[in-house]
Amino acid sequence: MSRFGADTTSSSLVDGRIAAEVSAEWGTGGPAPNGGYLLALVARALGGTLKHPHPLTITAHYLSAATPGPAVIETETLREGRTQTTAMARLVQDGKERIRVLAAYGDLADLPDDVRTTAKPPALPPVEECYAPPKEFAEVVTMMRHTEVRHDPATSGWARGKPSGVGLLRSWLRLADGTEPDPFMLLYTVDALPPVAFEMALNGWVPTLELTVHLRALPAPGWLRVQAESRNLAGGLIEEDIEVWDSEDRLVAQARQLAKVRLHSPAQAG
Amino acid sequence: MSRFGADTTSSSLVDGRIAAEVSAEWGTGGPAPNGGYLLALVARALGGTLKHPHPLTITAHYLSAATPGPAVIETETLREGRTQTTAMARLVQDGKERIRVLAAYGDLADLPDDVRTTAKPPALPPVEECYAPPKEFAEVVTMMRHTEVRHDPATSGWARGKPSGVGLLRSWLRLADGTEPDPFMLLYTVDALPPVAFEMALNGWVPTLELTVHLRALPAPGWLRVQAESRNLAGGLIEEDIEVWDSEDRLVAQARQLAKVRLHSPAQAG
Repeated sequence: MSRFGADTTSSSLVDGRIAAEVSAEWGTGGPAPNGGYLLALVARALGGTLKHPHPLTITAHYLSAATPGPAVIETETLREGRTQTTAMARLVQDGKERIRVLAAYGDLADLPDDVRTTAKPPALPPVEECYAPPKEFAEVVTMMRHTEVRHDPATSGWARGKPSGVGLLRSWLRLADGTEPDPFMLLYTVDALPPVAFEMALNGWVPTLELTVHLRALPAPGWLRVQAESRNLAGGLIEEDIEVWDSEDRLVAQARQLAKVRLHSPAQAG
Repeated sequence: MSRFGADTTSSSLVDGRIAAEVSAEWGTGGPAPNGGYLLALVARALGGTLKHPHPLTITAHYLSAATPGPAVIETETLREGRTQTTAMARLVQDGKERIRVLAAYGDLADLPDDVRTTAKPPALPPVEECYAPPKEFAEVVTMMRHTEVRHDPATSGWARGKPSGVGLLRSWLRLADGTEPDPFMLLYTVDALPPVAFEMALNGWVPTLELTVHLRALPAPGWLRVQAESRNLAGGLIEEDIEVWDSEDRLVAQARQLAKVRLHSPAQAG
């Protein structure tokens, strides 16, 4: 099994509750693991209890900071229909709720073939012309040990200490061990880029309040292209719109999150 | 009290549950009331139980068709923080769950003033040059008795039987009795335009699976401008992105919904 698969699989069931293990290998540099990884962990466990395997739309609220180690996932089916099941889940550690999830599951393999997408894939330079974060980065940001990203030089001024000020990031992404993308890996992918706020010259922690992901198709093998954009920074909150495109130019995931942001960069506050 | 205010206010509390009344005055022409109205009804009731008054981000899953008449709203506080409260609610009729809601509440009046919105308000012709639906329309679609809309002629070909095929709607909107917008009225507004699918030449019922709304500022008095756009119709599902701008050019709400759609218009199926 792949690293991502192993770290998002919860094996044991006790009294209808699921025993999960939050891995330390999907860290962002702070104490809490990546929010997309946590969502994938909960979503895979929840899917295992339902008639339908894949989240079509899933919303997570981040209530408190999860930490690597044991956790319990509790699930509830709200409505089971012919093509969709609506369900809820919560991830609990030490009696404290970390994440609450509300979702509608279906089967992405069963959806009609018809596609009338008018959105266009992000224009990215070839992988080999994009910026690879230095390997040392992965010593602190453990998720980078298992994730290959290549950032478009035009949108990664933040990495050279010269953010463009524009709320746009575009990157190639795949798992480092060669595992091809699946729907749960997409839930991780939508939260795997640096915060758009970095490219907007805003520093510091950007904690996610809420993340909603629509999974729209089974992803084809190969590199994914991820675009994250922010158009409304106001009131100490920022929205991020994320699109994930697969190697066959299919828009496989659309996501939006609302995060808190510190409005004053150090230079301005100085 | 305004019509909208009255129809979204739940007065009595019984055993921690809230007795609500689903009004017949916010109908869409089918048996079920408008989904945004229902969300506003639940959100106002939920807010009344919390320390923080306004939803900053709120997600609704529509489980079964609500009908005008009595309902019960059950609420649960998941986490109360200094500036935000995360909570859940469900609307139940005849023992059947209609809507499940997950939200983070805050106080829009308390947010910092800083605004760095790069999104631009939709370019709409003046109100008097826009298209007003015929008054008879309100006999069937009861919500139109209480809502004034003026559609941009450039995006309302559907109303003349000549949809453009482009997934874009732009309209002016306000409540008919002169009540100025408030945060709960914005929850209604994001779902008050016709389905974007109509302008894409797709007919029939477009039931919402899930709707997420970010409220970003208290709306100023006056007409609202609403833009709804769809960029990804695929697999029998369609996303709608909605923006609501107030009279002071402030982006006050951003919303996205996922809906089911019939992929074949009658002409094609013919």
